[in-house]
Amino acid sequence: MIRSKIALAARLAPLVALASPALSQEPPKSAPSPNEIVDAAPASDWVKIAPRDLLVMTLAPAADGSTRKVVIQLMPAPFSLGWVDNIRTLARDHWYDGIAVVRVQDNYVVQWGDPNGEDPAKAKPLPKGLKVMSEGDYASPVPPPSAKSPRAPAIGFAHVLDAYAPATGFTLTGWPVGSDGKMWWPVHCYGMVGVGRNYSPDTGTGAELYTVIGTPPRHLDRNIALVGRVIEGMEFLSSLPRGHGPLGFYQDPAKRVPILSVRLASDLPAAEQPHYEYLSTESQAFAKYADARANRRDPFFIHPAGGADICNIPVPVRPVPAG
Amino acid sequence: MIRSKIALAARLAPLVALASPALSQEPPKSAPSPNEIVDAAPASDWVKIAPRDLLVMTLAPAADGSTRKVVIQLMPAPFSLGWVDNIRTLARDHWYDGIAVVRVQDNYVVQWGDPNGEDPAKAKPLPKGLKVMSEGDYASPVPPPSAKSPRAPAIGFAHVLDAYAPATGFTLTGWPVGSDGKMWWPVHCYGMVGVGRNYSPDTGTGAELYTVIGTPPRHLDRNIALVGRVIEGMEFLSSLPRGHGPLGFYQDPAKRVPILSVRLASDLPAAEQPHYEYLSTESQAFAKYADARANRRDPFFIHPAGGADICNIPVPVRPVPAG
Repeated sequence: MIRSKIALAARLAPLVALASPALSQEPPKSAPSPNEIVDAAPASDWVKIAPRDLLVMTLAPAADGSTRKVVIQLMPAPFSLGWVDNIRTLARDHWYDGIAVVRVQDNYVVQWGDPNGEDPAKAKPLPKGLKVMSEGDYASPVPPPSAKSPRAPAIGFAHVLDAYAPATGFTLTGWPVGSDGKMWWPVHCYGMVGVGRNYSPDTGTGAELYTVIGTPPRHLDRNIALVGRVIEGMEFLSSLPRGHGPLGFYQDPAKRVPILSVRLASDLPAAEQPHYEYLSTESQAFAKYADARANRRDPFFIHPAGGADICNIPVPVRPVPAG
Repeated sequence: MIRSKIALAARLAPLVALASPALSQEPPKSAPSPNEIVDAAPASDWVKIAPRDLLVMTLAPAADGSTRKVVIQLMPAPFSLGWVDNIRTLARDHWYDGIAVVRVQDNYVVQWGDPNGEDPAKAKPLPKGLKVMSEGDYASPVPPPSAKSPRAPAIGFAHVLDAYAPATGFTLTGWPVGSDGKMWWPVHCYGMVGVGRNYSPDTGTGAELYTVIGTPPRHLDRNIALVGRVIEGMEFLSSLPRGHGPLGFYQDPAKRVPILSVRLASDLPAAEQPHYEYLSTESQAFAKYADARANRRDPFFIHPAGGADICNIPVPVRPVPAG
């Protein structure tokens, strides 16, 4: 197993772009931290996230009355298109309003959905026209290296030493992926959002979602659809009390956290729309940031690792004023 | 960098024990889950944890009055011996009683210590005789493969595709480690406990501790001392509200969570001592469990990963009755 993975990685190497010139330079002994590199990136290196790709989920207020807003960035083409379409349909139908966070399993996931979803007599009816996806849709064909259209991005950065994929890297649209050279797929990092499902061949609709709150459960890659990532308010999910039923489901229905509403930002009044941008994974600043995550040279560190796991290089995202 | 790491891994391969015979067998299509394998392990595969290696930390009760007890298993030889000795000294001195959880940074760490530790005029005096450790003590020499004494365990299992270490595996005493063939060192997985420190060359005393609550921050390996892991009550730390000061420190002192007491289990009255055992990393059951973590064949899965990150194979630990 190990031998064949190394061979695969070697075969992939010519396909993926390896370290950019910036990565092989010898920086000064006390170099900027990853955050300092991100803060210094020019405005032109940041890419605005389209309002139709933002999902705003409002939880019931906390015990002290404070608001709890979670913002999810939906995944772009070519990944998980049918599920993401379903999520837009469910949000526009206000289907999510009134469902709840039902499961919090420590070091694993927070999950939300219809608490009665498993009971056909009580389950909330789903809107018509939801797409039915297949297990083959968990991965997509890698576009040829020459194709650079927005719908067919190429891997921009590679870390091949990964236990779960022959190669890992970032799409030019800002998402972490694994690849075997032919196919690529999004990977389960902290804060990624996926689609709950029943046993195979069920693939889920998008009505039941979860996010990762612990060690990246990369064994779920290619076994469940990933549809986005939490970019604001993650703490309102990750700090919820853990459930004590099987799989971390809340045994006491009173523990569930009601979801008041889920809206696409593009469906909100202009004044209520949040705005975000991400650091382009094509930029020199991102390459320097990723290198600094792999080789910490800021003053605290004495022993740079010389590598970094794909999930330990989160793509920087920040809120921005409207306009 | 990537090329040289693969070469190193290949050189290390003869040193570490690779897949045991059980791992290369072709199991039935619907095989037991990792948890089912653990549950079926014979009693003889479990190893009792000595009471002197257990640290019982009692937090102030939760808002609803319920108790919050956290149990930490201290790391055995040859790792971090001086820091672990200091922690035993601090616990026996009751020094930790009255300190607090002061920092909760989402997807990173929960940290506890003296809230006034940075102010020489107000800091709680440390007991005399604490050991001063060096940065060289973050790693230990790998014992020769033939040595099998309890103080010089050999790696029992290896996963070489790791971005942070040429090889990773488990000591025969039940701990996840990285190695370059000459040295080995404990690794930062979810729930591992480390020693807070100031800038190099400071190495910390053990008076300030943290545990990992997110993506394994493996870049900290060999940069900070690891001294143990949380084996019970992790949720009382991981579900705490996040701090909003720099680095996730609580800005409002009222948010801090008081620590009522920290005791070695061996210093508690016999009736109050908790008891735990871990699944021997030398056992066939552990080899099967690790293989199942890397190749999920239980019914939910359609695509086994073919590998697993060292931090995604947590060593099973369970409470047991006294006696």
